Amino acid sequence: MNAIGVDVGGTKIAAAVVSPEGEILNEVRYPTLAVPPDRLVDTISRSINEVRDGFEVGGVCVAVPGLILAAENKVVFAPNLHGIENIRLNEVIGGATGLRVTVENDANAAAWGEFRYGAGKDVDHQVFITLGTGVGGGIITHGILLRGAQGSGGELGHVTLDPTGPRCGCGNHGCLEALASGTAIRRRAREVANEKPNSALGRLAVGREVLGEDVSRLAGEGDEASISVLEETGRWLGIGLAGFVNIFNPEVIPVGGGAAQAGEFILGPAREEVHLRARSPSRDLVRIEEATLGPESGVLGAAALARREDGEYVLGPSGRVT
Amino acid sequence: MNAIGVDVGGTKIAAAVVSPEGEILNEVRYPTLAVPPDRLVDTISRSINEVRDGFEVGGVCVAVPGLILAAENKVVFAPNLHGIENIRLNEVIGGATGLRVTVENDANAAAWGEFRYGAGKDVDHQVFITLGTGVGGGIITHGILLRGAQGSGGELGHVTLDPTGPRCGCGNHGCLEALASGTAIRRRAREVANEKPNSALGRLAVGREVLGEDVSRLAGEGDEASISVLEETGRWLGIGLAGFVNIFNPEVIPVGGGAAQAGEFILGPAREEVHLRARSPSRDLVRIEEATLGPESGVLGAAALARREDGEYVLGPSGRVT
Repeated sequence: MNAIGVDVGGTKIAAAVVSPEGEILNEVRYPTLAVPPDRLVDTISRSINEVRDGFEVGGVCVAVPGLILAAENKVVFAPNLHGIENIRLNEVIGGATGLRVTVENDANAAAWGEFRYGAGKDVDHQVFITLGTGVGGGIITHGILLRGAQGSGGELGHVTLDPTGPRCGCGNHGCLEALASGTAIRRRAREVANEKPNSALGRLAVGREVLGEDVSRLAGEGDEASISVLEETGRWLGIGLAGFVNIFNPEVIPVGGGAAQAGEFILGPAREEVHLRARSPSRDLVRIEEATLGPESGVLGAAALARREDGEYVLGPSGRVT
Repeated sequence: MNAIGVDVGGTKIAAAVVSPEGEILNEVRYPTLAVPPDRLVDTISRSINEVRDGFEVGGVCVAVPGLILAAENKVVFAPNLHGIENIRLNEVIGGATGLRVTVENDANAAAWGEFRYGAGKDVDHQVFITLGTGVGGGIITHGILLRGAQGSGGELGHVTLDPTGPRCGCGNHGCLEALASGTAIRRRAREVANEKPNSALGRLAVGREVLGEDVSRLAGEGDEASISVLEETGRWLGIGLAGFVNIFNPEVIPVGGGAAQAGEFILGPAREEVHLRARSPSRDLVRIEEATLGPESGVLGAAALARREDGEYVLGPSGRVT
């Protein structure tokens, strides 16, 4: 049966009707910033009612960038999306749409999308990581989405890699997110631009704020200062990933999110650190590569999770969803 | 059906016949150091044949301190137990005993013991950590033992907490094992004894090498220098555990192994760091406490895993073994 995946992001709300094969049959989008906080949940319901028009659908899964309390179908903390916090979304959105609604962390949903239809579609063990403004994670182990006891698991961005490192948005120092996110790239780019004012990066930084995509572009044009920023980011990413390789012994680590567009400038150094730090045989098995679905992984994964909740999929002998 | 659990350690080989309820019906032990490396596997087979005498048993699970390649029933790396490496243990020990034999990492087996019969017996989500000479880990998530793709997962000791930290046995710097193991306590105790020669710790260190249990005993007697060693160890442990809390959203973290006998001197500061660093709601749920089974967790867990492989237990709806 078709299902609806909703991906609630800082810039847009996307709702899609998705077939069991992972085909997007219909999609609507609303710009999040145009929606007042107290209208956010209504807008999600409206997007669902619009997108379903003419399609037979089973359940809905709403993916949200925040900490989930699964048993209550609540988002307990969603930075920049406070309008969605501490509301029983299954009841409110379910009431407005007449559909069965579940809630999932957005990185978990994207991870499930990559697992079902993308980089992880042939494996049982996948650690998905997304490098955006923050760092999100979603883990599939033995074919199961690792939600943890309350649905709050899979938070890979706030492992400490250096207790004396830069301050993180969470209040601690030296989290993976503080060292290897889009935010970390911009911070480090400012520092390197000051240190190397004659580099292309340094000259660009005189006129305006440097964005992550500037650093990637300049690195592609051969600017050593920009390359060094991405290499350092990749090394920190690799230090974090090495731990995840030791813990999860995964077959693949798809890396998604905006900062992943820097590609090999980040992934190359990350692989080197993993090779230095992770242990055999895990380090020899794992592939670290760009995620394949891009920004659609969220709606695709959310829809697949909605179907799964409907019992359409069951666990196979290996624990993998079949 | 009864099953046999074997726990191969650096000091002893223990084999036990265990009932489904977790009762040890018979046990034999051999001192590992008295066994030449090329006789190690034979001695394991002999211990199994001795301990089974008069009991009806199903399978055997052999727990080994090393990296496992589960598909081949091999230990690929076992420091100090090289005699067991790269041998298909199911074939050799199975041939010598006529029983079905599987292989498991020792910390995974101990984790499964705590999950079935100890600190985790009422939960679905448990992160077990053992602080001995090294740091071992074993994870149960959604009722499943997290082995990973090759059976090499659950290695919690080699996540990097400080890339400029002390050198680890694995060759890297600042692993959890290098900062919060029995080895780390001894190293730090030597340093603090030098810094504070008039402390009880400092005076003891003049005469002989300081052991982990010395530090615990002196801390119990109120020696501030010893207390500071354990507190620092606990803080590093907590920095590591905070990451695991964010990743796994577990209900309980039983802490086992020799260094855990320092009890609250280590666990208190560890809890404080987890409270500072882990995120809600995960940090509010988790209990961090001493493991309850002591050194028997290995044979108990191994036997339970052997029965599980025999199909005696199946996954329930929550994924938990029933």
